Amino acid sequence: MGATGSVGQRFVQLLEGHPWFELGAIFASDRSAGKQYQEVAKWFLPSAMPAEAAEMGVQSMQDLGVPRNEDLTIMFSALPGEVASEVEQRCAQLGFAVSSNVSVHRMEPDVPLVIAEVNADHLGLIEEQQSRRGWDGFIITNPNCSTIVMALSLKPLVRFGIDLVHVATMQAISGAGYAGVYSMAILDNVIPFIGREEEKMESETLKILGSLEGKAIRNAPFTVCASCNRVPVMDGHTEAVWVRFVENLHPDDVKDAFLNFRTDIRTPFAPERPIIVREEPDRPQPRLDRDAGNGMSVSVGRIRVGRAPNEIKYIVQGHNTVRGAAGAAILNAEVLLERGYL
Amino acid sequence: MGATGSVGQRFVQLLEGHPWFELGAIFASDRSAGKQYQEVAKWFLPSAMPAEAAEMGVQSMQDLGVPRNEDLTIMFSALPGEVASEVEQRCAQLGFAVSSNVSVHRMEPDVPLVIAEVNADHLGLIEEQQSRRGWDGFIITNPNCSTIVMALSLKPLVRFGIDLVHVATMQAISGAGYAGVYSMAILDNVIPFIGREEEKMESETLKILGSLEGKAIRNAPFTVCASCNRVPVMDGHTEAVWVRFVENLHPDDVKDAFLNFRTDIRTPFAPERPIIVREEPDRPQPRLDRDAGNGMSVSVGRIRVGRAPNEIKYIVQGHNTVRGAAGAAILNAEVLLERGYL
Amino acid sequence: MGATGSVGQRFVQLLEGHPWFELGAIFASDRSAGKQYQEVAKWFLPSAMPAEAAEMGVQSMQDLGVPRNEDLTIMFSALPGEVASEVEQRCAQLGFAVSSNVSVHRMEPDVPLVIAEVNADHLGLIEEQQSRRGWDGFIITNPNCSTIVMALSLKPLVRFGIDLVHVATMQAISGAGYAGVYSMAILDNVIPFIGREEEKMESETLKILGSLEGKAIRNAPFTVCASCNRVPVMDGHTEAVWVRFVENLHPDDVKDAFLNFRTDIRTPFAPERPIIVREEPDRPQPRLDRDAGNGMSVSVGRIRVGRAPNEIKYIVQGHNTVRGAAGAAILNAEVLLERGYL
Amino acid sequence: MGATGSVGQRFVQLLEGHPWFELGAIFASDRSAGKQYQEVAKWFLPSAMPAEAAEMGVQSMQDLGVPRNEDLTIMFSALPGEVASEVEQRCAQLGFAVSSNVSVHRMEPDVPLVIAEVNADHLGLIEEQQSRRGWDGFIITNPNCSTIVMALSLKPLVRFGIDLVHVATMQAISGAGYAGVYSMAILDNVIPFIGREEEKMESETLKILGSLEGKAIRNAPFTVCASCNRVPVMDGHTEAVWVRFVENLHPDDVKDAFLNFRTDIRTPFAPERPIIVREEPDRPQPRLDRDAGNGMSVSVGRIRVGRAPNEIKYIVQGHNTVRGAAGAAILNAEVLLERGYL
Repeated sequence: MGATGSVGQRFVQLLEGHPWFELGAIFASDRSAGKQYQEVAKWFLPSAMPAEAAEMGVQSMQDLGVPRNEDLTIMFSALPGEVASEVEQRCAQLGFAVSSNVSVHRMEPDVPLVIAEVNADHLGLIEEQQSRRGWDGFIITNPNCSTIVMALSLKPLVRFGIDLVHVATMQAISGAGYAGVYSMAILDNVIPFIGREEEKMESETLKILGSLEGKAIRNAPFTVCASCNRVPVMDGHTEAVWVRFVENLHPDDVKDAFLNFRTDIRTPFAPERPIIVREEPDRPQPRLDRDAGNGMSVSVGRIRVGRAPNEIKYIVQGHNTVRGAAGAAILNAEVLLERGYL
Repeated sequence: MGATGSVGQRFVQLLEGHPWFELGAIFASDRSAGKQYQEVAKWFLPSAMPAEAAEMGVQSMQDLGVPRNEDLTIMFSALPGEVASEVEQRCAQLGFAVSSNVSVHRMEPDVPLVIAEVNADHLGLIEEQQSRRGWDGFIITNPNCSTIVMALSLKPLVRFGIDLVHVATMQAISGAGYAGVYSMAILDNVIPFIGREEEKMESETLKILGSLEGKAIRNAPFTVCASCNRVPVMDGHTEAVWVRFVENLHPDDVKDAFLNFRTDIRTPFAPERPIIVREEPDRPQPRLDRDAGNGMSVSVGRIRVGRAPNEIKYIVQGHNTVRGAAGAAILNAEVLLERGYL
Repeated sequence: MGATGSVGQRFVQLLEGHPWFELGAIFASDRSAGKQYQEVAKWFLPSAMPAEAAEMGVQSMQDLGVPRNEDLTIMFSALPGEVASEVEQRCAQLGFAVSSNVSVHRMEPDVPLVIAEVNADHLGLIEEQQSRRGWDGFIITNPNCSTIVMALSLKPLVRFGIDLVHVATMQAISGAGYAGVYSMAILDNVIPFIGREEEKMESETLKILGSLEGKAIRNAPFTVCASCNRVPVMDGHTEAVWVRFVENLHPDDVKDAFLNFRTDIRTPFAPERPIIVREEPDRPQPRLDRDAGNGMSVSVGRIRVGRAPNEIKYIVQGHNTVRGAAGAAILNAEVLLERGYL
Repeated sequence: MGATGSVGQRFVQLLEGHPWFELGAIFASDRSAGKQYQEVAKWFLPSAMPAEAAEMGVQSMQDLGVPRNEDLTIMFSALPGEVASEVEQRCAQLGFAVSSNVSVHRMEPDVPLVIAEVNADHLGLIEEQQSRRGWDGFIITNPNCSTIVMALSLKPLVRFGIDLVHVATMQAISGAGYAGVYSMAILDNVIPFIGREEEKMESETLKILGSLEGKAIRNAPFTVCASCNRVPVMDGHTEAVWVRFVENLHPDDVKDAFLNFRTDIRTPFAPERPIIVREEPDRPQPRLDRDAGNGMSVSVGRIRVGRAPNEIKYIVQGHNTVRGAAGAAILNAEVLLERGYL
């Protein structure tokens, strides 16, 4: 759903040849409905448009309803915010599982906000959600792109006791959607503002790194201070992170935590190493590292002591439309399937 | 001295038509000596090479000596670090004033590290320097480009009581010199590393904002934590700053301090407003704001509350080779002249 | 008219402080009417918005009519094509002079298509236009930006006898307007297509370089073959030109023709040298040469023999929104005033 | 040989996992000899450095000699021009086959200058070369990157009778090597000059499209007029081509010739379609099309009538370091193996 935009095209691209999922239907706005996907999507990814998707007819969101299309199990949503809320809820009501990349439901207390390698246990909220809302289906969400990149890197550090996080982002233009940033706005420039991005990083991170206690999430007990910027980079968000811990750490403690981070998720989109440690003094860099792990790994580097007490600083980088959006939603769906939610 | 490089060309450009100073001689490496400036400088500024400089013969640094060229009063230095130390000291010994953009002498206790609008009173160290070293001349220095931009913005905030500063920079390629960054390294990319830049910001800032007490500088009593990055921007460093104060402030307090910041310096290169406040949600931006105040003003914006206690965050931007280098050194020289040091 | 767009902002910028013209009114779409210019124009030029214009109220094109605003003498038009035709004609009918940057009327036989330094004598068509259409006012036009740059360079070569011109353009993004090119479309990319641009270069050039014979223009007797491309450059169109002459020429003949090209136009916007010859092997370049002559000069270089018989090739570059648009229209207006048409 | 540079790294990357060839040794300058490849090559390709190559010891070109390393069959050369001539000749003398990407031997009459899909029959010159020079080995070369892209597109058009070709290139920065273009030189800019590039396109094309007659190549009987430019694009050369034929053609004739172009080469690096036809009005584009056919296909589009008699114009784009360099040399080597030359 919302298959023609920047993230929507990534969904279509990444689902091609997926071993578990088959692209069953493409939904877009009424304006596109009834036409072939290749007629309505101005494809801007370097690889060719998947042949099967190209000739698939685009359906209106109205067609979701009765009779329910029994071939469809899970809906991936990259809808614009203003329509996402109603459509996603209707899907869940109709019995579909929805894996949404949209922000609108993320912070609702009974909606899992999940990064598969970080907090797959939060999927336990689904039962509560269904029971509270009387739905057969359900909605799960993945975080904002810049949040995913940082939160994944914070996960192995939580056990040291995090007190305070500062983060400055340098985000790629693809995060704003195909028509989101005019070239005259960003060529030879930095735009030090992305609407509601800082708020998302500051709130979503705490929910993701929080713990499921009974039927609710208890937020992680630290503070995030974000400053978000757009830079002239096609794909890949780069983030400068300072973490103040509750006790003094050596950079090698942090590095080892990154190096040793593994999960038990072995689904198709799960990268072998969710976090890759770069040893070079000037890495990670988006152009060189965004495609690591098929775009599903984040890369960290420059792990060093900060000047403030108990502070470590490092750089983390991840592909914003793969790891930070469509790929994350697909990986979440794989976990749903593996754990019997579908 | 060092007139062919990125900052050296800015010196030549900015000194053209200067009402007080006249370009008396151009010094560069022995390789260039004896040729016309236009033969050895591959000019890369958009404006044309100043006609007078173009035909001036380039002199070797060896020619500085006996007999001393009495036409020269002040030497502007944009030398490479490895030769700067010896040459600048020799100049001072020969009786020249040296206004240096080079880092090598900046942190020496008897060398003023000056931003004219911030700490011109530190020029009082000159006497101590001459007496201690037995020189007729002297050396003054201006800070590193990224330091100048931030320190200027911090100056009006010092009186509120600064406790801690975090800063992430997004720095222009011209800061690395003409041959400093290959296009294959930076196109569609961010490089999260600039050699020794973080250390400079963290130490120089405290000296500049420190106080001259007797014959020495007492450092400012706070901590700076910097993370420095290169982005694909021609000119203009953009810096995301978080300041933790000793007490709680409203963003308007900070904004008013910026708005009301004035100095009594009225020399030719002194901008009418050293700090310009932008009200738009997405400013300052390097492409739009770097030339403000003929490149000598820094622009601030996005002044807002941080999440940490007593924290305010904002963005500051300034032209790195004008405000942050050649222009700063010329302004310092103007103050020297006005205050009778030349 | 059309003052909020890319070319419209250039008009406002360039008219600030103009010694002959004063900005009397700003017209834009009905959506903007009634508001201050600074409220409706998202200013994207590096220099600050002119203070006087900033607070001027924007008027609707409907307000042009009865009673006629007697303060307005000449209307500069940067309207979108779809509304320009009717509005410009209405202005001319109401008695205004219109200097239009829009393509819609350019090729009409009684409308002068003028580059001041090339064919100011074509203004002689005005009388014919007024008589044929029964207008008190009139419309003059300047060519398309890429055409102006090339045609100005061809002017001094016409006397050698031009037989055939090939031209490939590398055009700046500002030529498409502020919202014309998405950053995801052009970053790290070339777009080898600009709608109707090649047709304009191929037809307009012949009218401009044609001769006014009686009441009509006789087209120049050669052929132009154009291939137009968009590149990631902010301002400045670069054009690779091959000219086949009717006889064999030495590159120095062409170079001398460029060097000796002068006109008798001495109005404020007329550059001292409409054509600047660069001797360096790798010039002109848009970043370094677009601002030459305050953006009103074109720069040529790399004048060399072609492989085809009687062929000379060279590069020409000019600022597309100054020399190629707003500046050209203002210069045309100056000539109108000087020659008594206003 | 020459394995650390821009093209050298592509060789190492493309040879990883090659089904026919195994990387047997890496040669670079004496400065690098004795160290591991990962120590001396600053890897700048997005994919990771191949693990096997990373730990391979780099050898000096002096080590080529006696005793000959019998494991090595073919040497790929991406040496700098100044050393390539002697080293490549010595290799051939020692009995190695050399597939060279270097220009130095390309135009020698007994050295095949080959694009596999265009003129593999020119490999017939090898016998003449060996007999004339008394070598056991031999040298074959592939053309310059911009030449390959254009010549491949011209191949299916030769049978229509080509009279004259004009071409303007917009070339990627990777073509100049990693340190070839400074970012301050190309950001927001076009450089309308590439040393000796136009001469190469104008001469090499005629040799490639010429015919092997007896023991020599007879050049193709037409003229190429080139104008070469550098643009801020990472990979992929875009070329605007005008072809004047000896008779009038319809664009569909040309399009069909492109569509029907096939070769009998079925080796691993041979793309299924050497020429891909794009139907969109604004394609091909380097960012979207450079990786087509694993980077080994060129893409054409915008096939349309020119204004000059019998003229067709089109755009062609190809990956300069894959199709235009390392990939081309490897494909040539595959053909050598298949045809019994190794």
